Amino acid sequence: MNPGNWPTGYTKFACLVGDPAAHSLSPTLFNSGFSFLGLDWAYLAMSVSPDRLAAAIGGLKALGVGGISVTMPHKKEIIGLLDGLTPSAAMLSSVNVVYVEAGELIGDSTDGRALVDNLSFDHGIDLRGKRVALVGTGAVARSISVSLVQADVEKLSIHGRNRAAAKEIHLLASLGGSSTQVVLGEAADIETAEIVINGTSLGMSGRGHEGYSPVDKGLLHGGQFLCDVVYHPLETRFLQYAREIGAPHTNGVGMLTRIAVLAFERWTGEKAPVQEMRRAVTAEVEKRVSS
Amino acid sequence: MNPGNWPTGYTKFACLVGDPAAHSLSPTLFNSGFSFLGLDWAYLAMSVSPDRLAAAIGGLKALGVGGISVTMPHKKEIIGLLDGLTPSAAMLSSVNVVYVEAGELIGDSTDGRALVDNLSFDHGIDLRGKRVALVGTGAVARSISVSLVQADVEKLSIHGRNRAAAKEIHLLASLGGSSTQVVLGEAADIETAEIVINGTSLGMSGRGHEGYSPVDKGLLHGGQFLCDVVYHPLETRFLQYAREIGAPHTNGVGMLTRIAVLAFERWTGEKAPVQEMRRAVTAEVEKRVSS
Repeated sequence: MNPGNWPTGYTKFACLVGDPAAHSLSPTLFNSGFSFLGLDWAYLAMSVSPDRLAAAIGGLKALGVGGISVTMPHKKEIIGLLDGLTPSAAMLSSVNVVYVEAGELIGDSTDGRALVDNLSFDHGIDLRGKRVALVGTGAVARSISVSLVQADVEKLSIHGRNRAAAKEIHLLASLGGSSTQVVLGEAADIETAEIVINGTSLGMSGRGHEGYSPVDKGLLHGGQFLCDVVYHPLETRFLQYAREIGAPHTNGVGMLTRIAVLAFERWTGEKAPVQEMRRAVTAEVEKRVSS
Repeated sequence: MNPGNWPTGYTKFACLVGDPAAHSLSPTLFNSGFSFLGLDWAYLAMSVSPDRLAAAIGGLKALGVGGISVTMPHKKEIIGLLDGLTPSAAMLSSVNVVYVEAGELIGDSTDGRALVDNLSFDHGIDLRGKRVALVGTGAVARSISVSLVQADVEKLSIHGRNRAAAKEIHLLASLGGSSTQVVLGEAADIETAEIVINGTSLGMSGRGHEGYSPVDKGLLHGGQFLCDVVYHPLETRFLQYAREIGAPHTNGVGMLTRIAVLAFERWTGEKAPVQEMRRAVTAEVEKRVSS
């Protein structure tokens, strides 16, 4: 609820641009962080249709926006509207966050880095030397594959029914010049993996994907760490398996929070209050589930 | 201060566009009103330089803005960027508020109507049949002159050192087709006026105008109602005279509040909480004066 005496004329703003955007959890993540640190920033969600994206981005630049989060369906189309890209965004041809540097808009792609941060910092996993199975061949999986290779995992197996896309990811991830062994995955690679990641939307509610797991339960066991990028529902069928077999696991709130943390710190120059942001977004998700 | 759990993804936004904009009292007026009625709207101030105005306005339209307040130096230049104008804005070639109707941006000019509302509703003055002296020949005075004629004052005298501009206003105000007698004012018209309005920036702090009155004290008396459009300081030299001679009076907060009320009601479709908005803006002005 509007508190009446805020925003003021001095409040900076940042926003999400998506279509739709209203249901996003990003306002909860960013505004809880701004509030906790006492930063005079407001984060809004803007629903922008594809035909209006160019005007919207040009407008945000002219209005002095402090930062932009980008979600579906604009992650690729926004590229031509920006002043520059990070190497990561350029390599992945995808942008999920925009920084403002000296008035210029610079696009970055941080999905993969955020997932690696989630595993490393929130779950204390040292990825070096690990065998990782990644299911999925979409934009998020591409980003994750590159970051896993940069994190020096020992072996990365790519699993996806779309073999052409899987081969593309295999090629992309192999470009890193690290010692990671990248393979097109078979079922056996999942069984022998120490970390299994769902990088698809299987299990997500609202798209006819709910109740499905990207991996057969028989391939999973309690010695693995299971990671899902989906956060709605909080417990997908894949993570239900994890619970049933006693495997440690993390849901998509972890990556989502780390995406926000990376943006928050770049935009504001302040250390993001990670625990507070995760607490706020978890409470919001639970509120939505129960309502 | 950001309350942490707001704005949400569903929050609508409106904003001021000016250069500068940060010092404006409009965020206080609008956000206090939204808060009091429990409306999920946020009002922001955007500093936009003239060379970026076109991108900013196109962007606000694409972003789905709920309404725009317009201040210096954009009141004239914004006209070519809008989809339409009200008769008032067209006649005055000036826009201080933008409505969004079926996705189109419509500019209006409400300074004069706001001043008339202030006199009528806040001070119970029936303008019909009154003799009014108006000092000033700028955009605000133009708007006021037209609204006074529409309010059927008996006589309107225009006072300004710029005689060409005064003649223009005289012409403009005479177009209304009402029975109002519009004259180029002499000192005697001020003495015999029942209402004297300062429509200039004389008396305003920060522009080298502070401490000056647009009217000699000797022309004023306790039987008149004195009205100033300036609100910083709250008591200009002109209103100091009013206090000293015991004349009832109103400062620029009155018109400013009524400008916000007109915009608020058009944007939201709700009756604006005038008393709450005035209380909030008065408190904010007093806070600034004392700090």
